[in-house]
Amino acid sequence: MDRIEQANQEALRRMLTGDPVLIDVLPAGEVLSGLGERMILHAGPPIEWARMCGPMQGAIAGIAVFEGWASDLNEALSLAAEGAFDFHPNHDFDAVGPMTGMTTLRQPVMIVENRTTGNRSHCTINEGLGKVMRFGGNDAEVLDRLRWLRDVLGPSIGAALRQSEGIPLKAIVARGLTMGDEMHQRNVACSGLLLRALGPELARTAADTAALAESLAFIGGNDQFFLNVAMAMGKAIMDPVRDIESSTIVTAMSRNGTEFGIRVSGTGDTWYTAPVEMPEGLYFPGFGPDDANPDMGDSTIVETIGLGGFAMAAAPAVAGFVGAGTASEAALFTQAMSQITIGENPEWTIPSLDYQGVPTGIDIRLVVESNVAPTINTGIAHKEPGRGQVGAGVVKAPLACFEAALVGVAEALGVS
Amino acid sequence: MDRIEQANQEALRRMLTGDPVLIDVLPAGEVLSGLGERMILHAGPPIEWARMCGPMQGAIAGIAVFEGWASDLNEALSLAAEGAFDFHPNHDFDAVGPMTGMTTLRQPVMIVENRTTGNRSHCTINEGLGKVMRFGGNDAEVLDRLRWLRDVLGPSIGAALRQSEGIPLKAIVARGLTMGDEMHQRNVACSGLLLRALGPELARTAADTAALAESLAFIGGNDQFFLNVAMAMGKAIMDPVRDIESSTIVTAMSRNGTEFGIRVSGTGDTWYTAPVEMPEGLYFPGFGPDDANPDMGDSTIVETIGLGGFAMAAAPAVAGFVGAGTASEAALFTQAMSQITIGENPEWTIPSLDYQGVPTGIDIRLVVESNVAPTINTGIAHKEPGRGQVGAGVVKAPLACFEAALVGVAEALGVS
Repeated sequence: MDRIEQANQEALRRMLTGDPVLIDVLPAGEVLSGLGERMILHAGPPIEWARMCGPMQGAIAGIAVFEGWASDLNEALSLAAEGAFDFHPNHDFDAVGPMTGMTTLRQPVMIVENRTTGNRSHCTINEGLGKVMRFGGNDAEVLDRLRWLRDVLGPSIGAALRQSEGIPLKAIVARGLTMGDEMHQRNVACSGLLLRALGPELARTAADTAALAESLAFIGGNDQFFLNVAMAMGKAIMDPVRDIESSTIVTAMSRNGTEFGIRVSGTGDTWYTAPVEMPEGLYFPGFGPDDANPDMGDSTIVETIGLGGFAMAAAPAVAGFVGAGTASEAALFTQAMSQITIGENPEWTIPSLDYQGVPTGIDIRLVVESNVAPTINTGIAHKEPGRGQVGAGVVKAPLACFEAALVGVAEALGVS
Repeated sequence: MDRIEQANQEALRRMLTGDPVLIDVLPAGEVLSGLGERMILHAGPPIEWARMCGPMQGAIAGIAVFEGWASDLNEALSLAAEGAFDFHPNHDFDAVGPMTGMTTLRQPVMIVENRTTGNRSHCTINEGLGKVMRFGGNDAEVLDRLRWLRDVLGPSIGAALRQSEGIPLKAIVARGLTMGDEMHQRNVACSGLLLRALGPELARTAADTAALAESLAFIGGNDQFFLNVAMAMGKAIMDPVRDIESSTIVTAMSRNGTEFGIRVSGTGDTWYTAPVEMPEGLYFPGFGPDDANPDMGDSTIVETIGLGGFAMAAAPAVAGFVGAGTASEAALFTQAMSQITIGENPEWTIPSLDYQGVPTGIDIRLVVESNVAPTINTGIAHKEPGRGQVGAGVVKAPLACFEAALVGVAEALGVS
């Protein structure tokens, strides 16, 4: 076996032996080292204010008001343009965030620990569907919900988890795959399974049954509640895969709404970027492709671990967003992803593929050789600030990222 | 269209337009008209004590102690043999019960109302897996659990439902079919979906968070919690289909552990019976076919409405109990049931069959002509009293029931 193969097998081994457990919810400021006032973490590779897309600028204005750094959205926009805020990728702070991916001091973050390696990853709590900050929403309804997450739901889940032994996530995902979830655009089953585990702990630690009822209704009413858990899980699994010398395995894929970026094990934290593409999919009534922002969010971490578009065969309902909703059509997506991955996950299997494991370990060499781009299941944001979600669909990772990464790894290997 | 066809189309119409809603939980004695002291309702067609199977006798001894009609199991057995108890089928009291199907005065029953027709059906609360009364269990652990259902969980769910608008069940089942449930041996998804709907109402009406935590843990820890809801739903859908003159559609299938019985629309409440068969399936470690009791329970009402074995294609995991766990093998079961049914349910569809509706409306003429017996997914009880569940599998409805029913309908039509 040559050294690249050997490095990639080590990467796969680390991926498959990860043991992610949801252990706590705490304010980001208490757990993300280095996060301070007027710092705003966002999805995707680094980007400055001027090049940010509409929904990300909208979210930034909203989160600045939420944090008390501006009295209203207009002031927040002026401050942002003047350089009053520091912007950094979530990925640089052990965090991930869906769509715009806002993470700031006072937001509660869920903490997933990889019990095999001890590292922890963090993600905010999913806000639900429609007009929400991750899709660029920033009005009073959006901010009120964030305050409720900060003051009620976050502390409740944190208290519940702290008096439990944590909720192991691998088994929940395994079961979700047999129940129609792919853990990116469909999390119905896993959200329910998580609620089953969390409900009794929430009740045991509840001071107030009215607040408890609100919390149970919020979790129970949000089919995507598990998405943010799956994302923190994804990063907790992939972080130990960084920095394996000579490995060509992708450790992160992410988008900031302007650029798509990937990281590869053999070159550590270097981002290889290309302009992000436009999703193809279904729009909510009254919206269409002209309203859509290009693809956005750290949520592609779930594809990086073999879920989302890679597990499409498990979720024909999601394939239906692009008019491919039969079981056989959905299977084609997963089969294509097998061409660009080095293994399968024997613990995460898909019934309709006769229990084949999800395609795992994206090798940039296979992507470049085959010209098969990773398929990503995604939500679609309105391109203007403050508007929110307009649809959901599928997008391709740009091949240029993988080509650039291959050059980067070759240089690192001294074979440029 | 001849009059049988016309009657059967009317039967199908009533089945497809039923609107079952879970509305309450109350003690059986308050809602089952005519149910009195020392009356024991059981699964299946009528049967006297001497011919009852081991697990049913065991359950009767247990429930007599639970109700305070005997001080211990031995006294209960003596009383039963002396004729101290009145035995009746659940089906004669607007009720259904899984396996042994014990229903008595002080047990809480869930109430499902068919909002289209106004009729109500009832079923006890599912006890969980293992050593439970429905599988013939009767020791202190079993009786303590029944007391907790009576004193804590039943009243809690009742209070929660009464202050809600009820939980519509058709949509939950529709979603469950896309999540790997067939609503007989697999209810993981529907149990979670029901908990999502019920959780906030339980919290709103909870007096005591410790008891609430217990209730949420019990529901959340029982993958089969929804089975008994599905059964009451099945009867609520099928009862309005009884008594359509000339119809050859099956309105109930049920087993008492000794005999299998069916009812047919054109002949009302007449049971057509035959000796019940032995399930084929998987046994828990340490048990095998020699330990098994023949098939038992009112739960076959779910097959009568197109679920369970009829919806096997939705649930390859259940087909796995008989070594047929691939998607294609599971589909064969559903396809066979299409041969003996007159329609499909457009609201209950199966993704892996490209969203074909579940086979609906068993026509006894098609069963007799094709010699294809309804496939039933079932649990397997130990044949001795007091032992409990030993496995799960698949069983065929005996063809002799359908042949006898065909003669009965012919006689009713005056064409014998």
